Amino acid sequence: MSDEKLTPRNVDFSEWYNQIVLRAEMADYAPVRGCMVVRPYGWALWENIQQALDKRFKDTGHVNAAFPLFIPMSFLEKEKEHVEGFSPELAVVTIGGGEKLEEPLVVRPTSETIIGYMYSKWIKSYRDLPVLINQWGNVVRWELRTRLFLRTLEFYWQEGHTAHATEQEAREETMRMLQVYAEFAVNEAAVPVISGVKSQTEKFAGANMSTAIEAMMQDTRALQSGTSHFLAQNFAKAFDIQFLDENNTLQYAWTTSWGLSTRFIGAIIMTHGDDQGLILPPRLAPIQAVIVPIFKSDSETAAVLETVTRVQAELKAAGIRVKVDDRTEVTPGFKFNDWEMRGVPLRIEIGPKDVEKGSVALARRDRPGREGKSFVPQAGLAAVVADLLTDIQKSLLERAIAFRDSHIFDPKDYTELTEVVQNGWAYSYWCESAECEAKVKEDTKATTRCMPLDQSLGKGKCIVCGKEAKRKVYFAKAY
Amino acid sequence: MSDEKLTPRNVDFSEWYNQIVLRAEMADYAPVRGCMVVRPYGWALWENIQQALDKRFKDTGHVNAAFPLFIPMSFLEKEKEHVEGFSPELAVVTIGGGEKLEEPLVVRPTSETIIGYMYSKWIKSYRDLPVLINQWGNVVRWELRTRLFLRTLEFYWQEGHTAHATEQEAREETMRMLQVYAEFAVNEAAVPVISGVKSQTEKFAGANMSTAIEAMMQDTRALQSGTSHFLAQNFAKAFDIQFLDENNTLQYAWTTSWGLSTRFIGAIIMTHGDDQGLILPPRLAPIQAVIVPIFKSDSETAAVLETVTRVQAELKAAGIRVKVDDRTEVTPGFKFNDWEMRGVPLRIEIGPKDVEKGSVALARRDRPGREGKSFVPQAGLAAVVADLLTDIQKSLLERAIAFRDSHIFDPKDYTELTEVVQNGWAYSYWCESAECEAKVKEDTKATTRCMPLDQSLGKGKCIVCGKEAKRKVYFAKAY
Repeated sequence: MSDEKLTPRNVDFSEWYNQIVLRAEMADYAPVRGCMVVRPYGWALWENIQQALDKRFKDTGHVNAAFPLFIPMSFLEKEKEHVEGFSPELAVVTIGGGEKLEEPLVVRPTSETIIGYMYSKWIKSYRDLPVLINQWGNVVRWELRTRLFLRTLEFYWQEGHTAHATEQEAREETMRMLQVYAEFAVNEAAVPVISGVKSQTEKFAGANMSTAIEAMMQDTRALQSGTSHFLAQNFAKAFDIQFLDENNTLQYAWTTSWGLSTRFIGAIIMTHGDDQGLILPPRLAPIQAVIVPIFKSDSETAAVLETVTRVQAELKAAGIRVKVDDRTEVTPGFKFNDWEMRGVPLRIEIGPKDVEKGSVALARRDRPGREGKSFVPQAGLAAVVADLLTDIQKSLLERAIAFRDSHIFDPKDYTELTEVVQNGWAYSYWCESAECEAKVKEDTKATTRCMPLDQSLGKGKCIVCGKEAKRKVYFAKAY
Repeated sequence: MSDEKLTPRNVDFSEWYNQIVLRAEMADYAPVRGCMVVRPYGWALWENIQQALDKRFKDTGHVNAAFPLFIPMSFLEKEKEHVEGFSPELAVVTIGGGEKLEEPLVVRPTSETIIGYMYSKWIKSYRDLPVLINQWGNVVRWELRTRLFLRTLEFYWQEGHTAHATEQEAREETMRMLQVYAEFAVNEAAVPVISGVKSQTEKFAGANMSTAIEAMMQDTRALQSGTSHFLAQNFAKAFDIQFLDENNTLQYAWTTSWGLSTRFIGAIIMTHGDDQGLILPPRLAPIQAVIVPIFKSDSETAAVLETVTRVQAELKAAGIRVKVDDRTEVTPGFKFNDWEMRGVPLRIEIGPKDVEKGSVALARRDRPGREGKSFVPQAGLAAVVADLLTDIQKSLLERAIAFRDSHIFDPKDYTELTEVVQNGWAYSYWCESAECEAKVKEDTKATTRCMPLDQSLGKGKCIVCGKEAKRKVYFAKAY
């Protein structure tokens, strides 16, 4: 921790982000280029994300398993689009136990191929379907430009891989998991997202259709925060995942895959943070409330600490994740800054006067200064804190929605589109041609983000070429 | 699942083990030599192991974090014993993003080096100590002879890495975590273990002192099931982990590391399993009770399934992990065998007569046949099941202790030692010389397992050379 002020967001958003990640001790640079160390505070946030998602996966019938880190190079080559998409990004093991390997091993960049191989061994009959497996793990993609959490050589994620008897089931699964991601993002992380279908250019290498949740960061750039893919029979054919159906006919299975990674931590930071540091949504925050004892003389210490200990026990018993900052070598003011940097949703100050009056001072992280401050009785504090945390969660979401909605535009023509994507998203009709998509990218650096599913199927004119278009798409600069 | 009988333990223990792992669908062979796929049932067991351990780690003040998979080759070379120990077992990445790397990257076989590097960045003052971090993850050791769970190229584990201001604190931490492992093994897994200090020959490469928990399998071979190492200042000096103490003097930190892996699943299988399959300790079993509905005619079906659904809900509400096997394509007899193979501690049968009488039939997995069967009322079933699960847990531990204790011998001379280690462990005085240890290994294949901490410090004569010895050691053949 340093006492230095953060670079404000409006001065250099990117620098602001990097400083928060380091100073809040979320992550650090590893000695290997592009790799990261997720520090305990960042990992505790990831554990809470994992729990919230894992519960949803299990509630929708999924189970976890673990597949190997190493994939024979030949496996990737079995699916043409897949190998083209991933081969520039591979880390390759060529030496094992001191000897050159006959076949090099790829460190998994994603696991469709090795899981497809195993599914072909396990799936024989329609009775074996559906297979609904998820894996929590690490993957490696050899990226050239890296940023902590947003794009690192190694990252942590979950990847779901399912196999189904029919196309319809696999399509439903794809959408179900997209919906699980969207609901998680909104209700747990207070990150409003737009769900939709990716363009053919932007889809996963090997998928027939990719879908994603897209979130708007405070610099208005889009962050793809989770993806769900309908893989049709592409991997089933490449890996021979066949089953006997109810009529004893051999069929290829239909598969899906879906993933959400530590990148999502970047989404949380850039959606909620302010110029004092991180702001964590209470439902995911490793520490929901921090108690800072305040005393000047030694005679005050005992009474304050006694109250602090009692309050801590009460909050903990009520299921609130609470921490006492009992450091003696730093001032209360330093502690305030420190916990603001770390984004703890609620600060509880307890000093000699509070002990006398039976009260505490509360400071909301989401409303700096006096506005967020209140003085409440110690009696019944746990319920007050729980309510406040709920309110902070709600306020963060509302604020993020308001920000997003005020930066989504409906440009009247192409010139206006090129302007609005400089500081927002354009939501426009698009003819779905790769040419129009490429032109926007070349002219503005904005890409298509997704075509929402729930748009009424009106028709319009493509904002780029004027041809008839069936759907609208979001254009935005993206991470 | 196949209907075939398992190879009995007394015919071929090793084959029995392999068959259980595959048929209970705990794990499968991966396409890369020596790698494994942990299947959902095996991973669910690992998740329960993780939860039980993680709670203990957090209760003793530890936090989790994630360090990179890739370690620069030069890091390993900084600690002489460490590199000598691990260099024959390394998987090495030489190509990244299509280009040959300037410095090859090792896929971590363990993380002392890279964590040491990070600690040297983070630790500046005595106020930063102790650092108590654990990591859940995967590691790779290029083994030549592999067995599912027991020894695989890639395996899953946790590795704790701590740094302390004093030697005493680091020694205490080493012993604290050894004790955590022992208590976990006994109370959660019903695996009785013997804790003690490893010989200098058997210690971790880079440690000053290694300790371990050692368990006896049903073939009487020992399985090292968890280890805790006192690393002294070895890694602190190699990676320059220095701090200013309270007198403003620069000091090297004292570090420890400790780990328990998916190998422990092998310990559970080989401690409790029988010739019908796996037997899982109730506290860790993914499914604690399985309900098998029994009906012959369609008219019976509705009434039986109604009762089954109600019983399932009651058990679930009582916190019991219960599953209903409602498959229609297989017979109850097939299901009984199937769940016996998978080691579910308790089977609940519900048929038309049970519906009439308001009863159920219970079958304990640990007591085959009539002995383990009872008929109890549906009313109050949850409490009966909970009590039975507690009793099964207790019985498994008692049985394992009895087996172990009846296979530990106190040989009167070296000849007897060479005999008893063919079918048991010898607990004998040893002079702690590497020569005597090597002689036993050469003559019998038995190695020193550990020197228990709690032995009264009597003196004796080394069972090998007859010289004076301070402590006793366990000699045993080991996995």
